[in-house]
Amino acid sequence: MRKAVWIKHASQLVTLASKLKGPRVKGAMSELAIIENGSIWLEDGIIQAVGTTEELEVFYTESEADVEIIDATGHLVTPGLVDPHTHIAFGGSREKEFEMRLEGATYMDIMNAGGGIHSTTRMTREATENELVIQTSKRLDSFLAHGVTTIEGKSGYGLDLETEIKQLRVMKRLQKEHPMDIVPTFMGAHAVPEAFKDREEDYVNLIINDMLPLVAKEKLAKFNDVFCEVGVFTPEQTERILEAGKSHGLIPKIHADEIEPYKGAELAAKVGAISAEHLLKTTEEGIQAMAEKGVIACLLPATALYLRETAAKGRRMIDAGVPVAISTDCNPGSSPTTSMPLVMNLACISMRLTPAESLCAATYNAACAIQMEDKVGSLEVGKQADVVLWNVQSYQQLQYLFGVNHVKTVWKKGLKVVG
Amino acid sequence: MRKAVWIKHASQLVTLASKLKGPRVKGAMSELAIIENGSIWLEDGIIQAVGTTEELEVFYTESEADVEIIDATGHLVTPGLVDPHTHIAFGGSREKEFEMRLEGATYMDIMNAGGGIHSTTRMTREATENELVIQTSKRLDSFLAHGVTTIEGKSGYGLDLETEIKQLRVMKRLQKEHPMDIVPTFMGAHAVPEAFKDREEDYVNLIINDMLPLVAKEKLAKFNDVFCEVGVFTPEQTERILEAGKSHGLIPKIHADEIEPYKGAELAAKVGAISAEHLLKTTEEGIQAMAEKGVIACLLPATALYLRETAAKGRRMIDAGVPVAISTDCNPGSSPTTSMPLVMNLACISMRLTPAESLCAATYNAACAIQMEDKVGSLEVGKQADVVLWNVQSYQQLQYLFGVNHVKTVWKKGLKVVG
Ligand SMILES: [Zn+2]
Ligand SMILES: [Zn+2]
Repeated sequence: MRKAVWIKHASQLVTLASKLKGPRVKGAMSELAIIENGSIWLEDGIIQAVGTTEELEVFYTESEADVEIIDATGHLVTPGLVDPHTHIAFGGSREKEFEMRLEGATYMDIMNAGGGIHSTTRMTREATENELVIQTSKRLDSFLAHGVTTIEGKSGYGLDLETEIKQLRVMKRLQKEHPMDIVPTFMGAHAVPEAFKDREEDYVNLIINDMLPLVAKEKLAKFNDVFCEVGVFTPEQTERILEAGKSHGLIPKIHADEIEPYKGAELAAKVGAISAEHLLKTTEEGIQAMAEKGVIACLLPATALYLRETAAKGRRMIDAGVPVAISTDCNPGSSPTTSMPLVMNLACISMRLTPAESLCAATYNAACAIQMEDKVGSLEVGKQADVVLWNVQSYQQLQYLFGVNHVKTVWKKGLKVVG
Repeated sequence: MRKAVWIKHASQLVTLASKLKGPRVKGAMSELAIIENGSIWLEDGIIQAVGTTEELEVFYTESEADVEIIDATGHLVTPGLVDPHTHIAFGGSREKEFEMRLEGATYMDIMNAGGGIHSTTRMTREATENELVIQTSKRLDSFLAHGVTTIEGKSGYGLDLETEIKQLRVMKRLQKEHPMDIVPTFMGAHAVPEAFKDREEDYVNLIINDMLPLVAKEKLAKFNDVFCEVGVFTPEQTERILEAGKSHGLIPKIHADEIEPYKGAELAAKVGAISAEHLLKTTEEGIQAMAEKGVIACLLPATALYLRETAAKGRRMIDAGVPVAISTDCNPGSSPTTSMPLVMNLACISMRLTPAESLCAATYNAACAIQMEDKVGSLEVGKQADVVLWNVQSYQQLQYLFGVNHVKTVWKKGLKVVG
């Protein structure tokens, strides 16, 4: 007998369905295609029908299949959220350092106590593949519990060939072993490792000559990301690494203009990056360049909060025609959170996105930022049955009642994984 | 047969036990009195024993009673959180207005659409007592789910005799009908009602001559709070209202220096207020006055975030010797959240409290701000069995892994209410 889930009577079924293809800009970000008294039929991991409850009742009856009926009266239903920028596959935890810093420790105190970014590199190198799988799997569970059903994950805490590959293999294994969809990004250029201090060019060459070919050969990543920042990788180095990746079929992304304006957004437009990340210090010229080339701005307001920085100019970017996505940036140094609902709230509070834009940025546009929009990010017939039922009545309440995880039930490929 | 709960093997049992009485200042805020491999015995609604698991095993065996054993290996255990400042008993919801504002509506657009603070007053007046009980009860459920077991609640959305009394009666009923401990505060002076525009003095007289005597006679409140702010109530009006309350046995609190410096903190010290709230714009003189008189600073970093204001100078206040508590400020206009865990995170991120200080501010010092420290706020023999088991190993992780509700199980007066 066929197995199915039939969700009925949703107060708002936010489908985000559209005939437009590709990342949404300006007013299109607010078109949520909401169905009141909405209904959706999930079967074989796929969305089979979407409409009003009356419409679906014409075609289906309860005897149609071994169907679980979900009464969503008074509840919001949305696509599974998509987090397009994380660093989930890391070793260790840095809460001691968080405490030390608040107790007044200096940067050097923390380094001397074995803290800082290089401590994550050390702990990631020391961890076995199995240990990383276990730790990362727990983080993925937390993401699912917060309504996220598709996630991007970057390497970049190995900074040597062996560990970068290990991080990517961990994600490849979890793609099979965990319900989450995981889209891998190679980010060997996340930092200059300690062993290459004052000889950054040698490390750039190692990435280009050794790491990228192996990553491509083993098909371990879809994207190639570089931390383009003063004191990390220059725009020139960034461009070389991204062009080398392109020759292997890896699509460019750039951590751009986070700490200082460095024309990272302009470079993203120049190299044809699918997205540029952070963008706290991006100039008006950078915004225009991104708008012209359709580069997706992947904005990370939880990171800005955690670092006590002013959030990116999300409102201005949307008004200028840049497609905007949002993300947790989950990582142990600058954003140890797994809550996309909080990120949606912060997109409204800190960046002045509207509640509708914020939801689009966390679903359809986020899917576009990792080229998954054909499968996820909206509720349309034929797409993956990734669906969230919320303990609120409307998307407006979801964004307004902030700091709370309103998830009630999550289905991933039609199977209940939360609730 | 006796019924009991025995929690064993907590990785950290944070007791906050101390021989000191009253609000904690400076270094005392960091003394969490942590027991590793901790154990606690709950029975008859009271904490019967606290110690290491070995210590308790000397006195108890499993056959001792009808005891539920909780294996807390790898888990943090803390006192139930205390939220010392909320406006929970209100009618309606204002997510539409939140959306309108982000879509560019002006203050007047929102007023014309029936929004703003007076809309909450209208909806609170229109709601029956039963309706308010149902709505408030749901909010209390959410607080419990976030680890809060004791809460303060203010009137102040009635602004007429009948509705102010109705709000206080709602809380009195919920104190009986809901597991939450609710400490009521009269706050008729929350705003000047529309009917008293340009004749504020008449409203002040109404509060003093009609409202306060009735509130006191019916024993509906323990505290008396005033919104002392430019354009709302002057320091002189605030002092008159608070002195009148004192003559009826009501203890003063002040919403002070939130929007502009107005010497609210100094006034709190002068009138002997138990706490002053918000304090975003309090001057160094105000801080000194509070430290001298031991006025508790009740800080609301979620409100500051929501209003995009710089948070209060929590770090400076603690260093100056002010006892600090923290709170959600849960209300429909400037802080629609029920998450004390987020508030603890923000106390670290935005106000530079240490993880230990933040926990003290959300438990023991918060209890002091509502004179409940003899019953709740620490895990000591004889106190109420209000206990939270968390999905993290340490209080440091609780503060570091931000934006997530890590609550696993909550006991209120020894009974499991969450998990
Ligand atoms: Zn990143
Ligand atoms: Zn308040």
